[in-house]
Amino acid sequence: MRPTKKTQILWAAADLLKEQGLQALSFEGLAAQSGFSRQLVRYYYPDLEGLVSDLCDHLAGTYRDALVAGIVEVGDVERLDFFLDFFFDLASDHRMPDNLKAYDAMFAYAVGSKRVRNRMCDQYKTLGQVVSHELGIVHPHLDAQACEELSFLFVSLMHAHWSFVASLGYSREHSRLARTAMDRLITSYVSDSRPAAAMQRPWDRDG
Amino acid sequence: MRPTKKTQILWAAADLLKEQGLQALSFEGLAAQSGFSRQLVRYYYPDLEGLVSDLCDHLAGTYRDALVAGIVEVGDVERLDFFLDFFFDLASDHRMPDNLKAYDAMFAYAVGSKRVRNRMCDQYKTLGQVVSHELGIVHPHLDAQACEELSFLFVSLMHAHWSFVASLGYSREHSRLARTAMDRLITSYVSDSRPAAAMQRPWDRDG
Repeated sequence: MRPTKKTQILWAAADLLKEQGLQALSFEGLAAQSGFSRQLVRYYYPDLEGLVSDLCDHLAGTYRDALVAGIVEVGDVERLDFFLDFFFDLASDHRMPDNLKAYDAMFAYAVGSKRVRNRMCDQYKTLGQVVSHELGIVHPHLDAQACEELSFLFVSLMHAHWSFVASLGYSREHSRLARTAMDRLITSYVSDSRPAAAMQRPWDRDG
Repeated sequence: MRPTKKTQILWAAADLLKEQGLQALSFEGLAAQSGFSRQLVRYYYPDLEGLVSDLCDHLAGTYRDALVAGIVEVGDVERLDFFLDFFFDLASDHRMPDNLKAYDAMFAYAVGSKRVRNRMCDQYKTLGQVVSHELGIVHPHLDAQACEELSFLFVSLMHAHWSFVASLGYSREHSRLARTAMDRLITSYVSDSRPAAAMQRPWDRDG
């Protein structure tokens, strides 16, 4: 199946961000990168904010596709570990797509755009729900609150890890540190799942 | 003691970023906010990158001052908890200075500036060293590697927390979740301090 023109524009946007950063994101840049005319790019995406919002889903989709390709090979119980490994890029046979710089530029864009911010939060929440679900399968005695707290901590550690690697230049090797910390946290919750005081609803947002 | 003109310019920069965000950071904006002439601002800070670098140290200094004001009241053993509480803004008598939006803008600036990035990493590393030191006092059986791993995880969780609150709008209540996770991790390391496999040197940077 040939990719749609919209998809090709999103590929071009991801490449542009990867190679030249957020300041290069313009209709001119997208036209040059995609080989389409400036008018055609604008026809599909009248504003850049809409394009970055779709890019958010597009990047999440590339991670999901790589993840699903690995999941068919692992059983129910190993699936949680595979999930956690994958998002720290520690699943050696199933590497994360290298979209880190594009992802980082998108996050910087989100600071100024409520629309992109909401889309990112939706993606994080979906990821959290999946991790929560897998935790419940492997550890049936953990209640829903504990699973949600752990899933939020996982997304936090993952976010910090990639932000530190992409924005601050910390070594990728820290992935092992964060991944091991997740195992320690899961073990801790399994032996004592009292929820964090006064944090009734993980994943809540103010605005 | 009257603040120096340089300090007053940094105050103006922090206010500007808080109220209007990164796009408002210009010599014109700084002149209007500080009440100094554009020429005077440029005399002290010929380029904005140097100003944002100094702003990084300035903001870290405001956190340190508030922290030190609280530390004189607590003993050796409570000091670690006070530290961890403080940086999640859970030390009720000693609140963190509300520079969150300025901090967030500075972080976005760091993505494009190696100089600011290095300055931020220096501040994070200093914070990590202090936490590492305090961990060693409270838990003398933890070795240096374990303390460094825990300090890196603390800075990661703190960074993720404030980034989620400032950039993505997650509720500040998640601070309790992250703070409790730190206690769980410390307990876990105290009972089993095996280091994360193949992560020899926490805080390493590639570039």
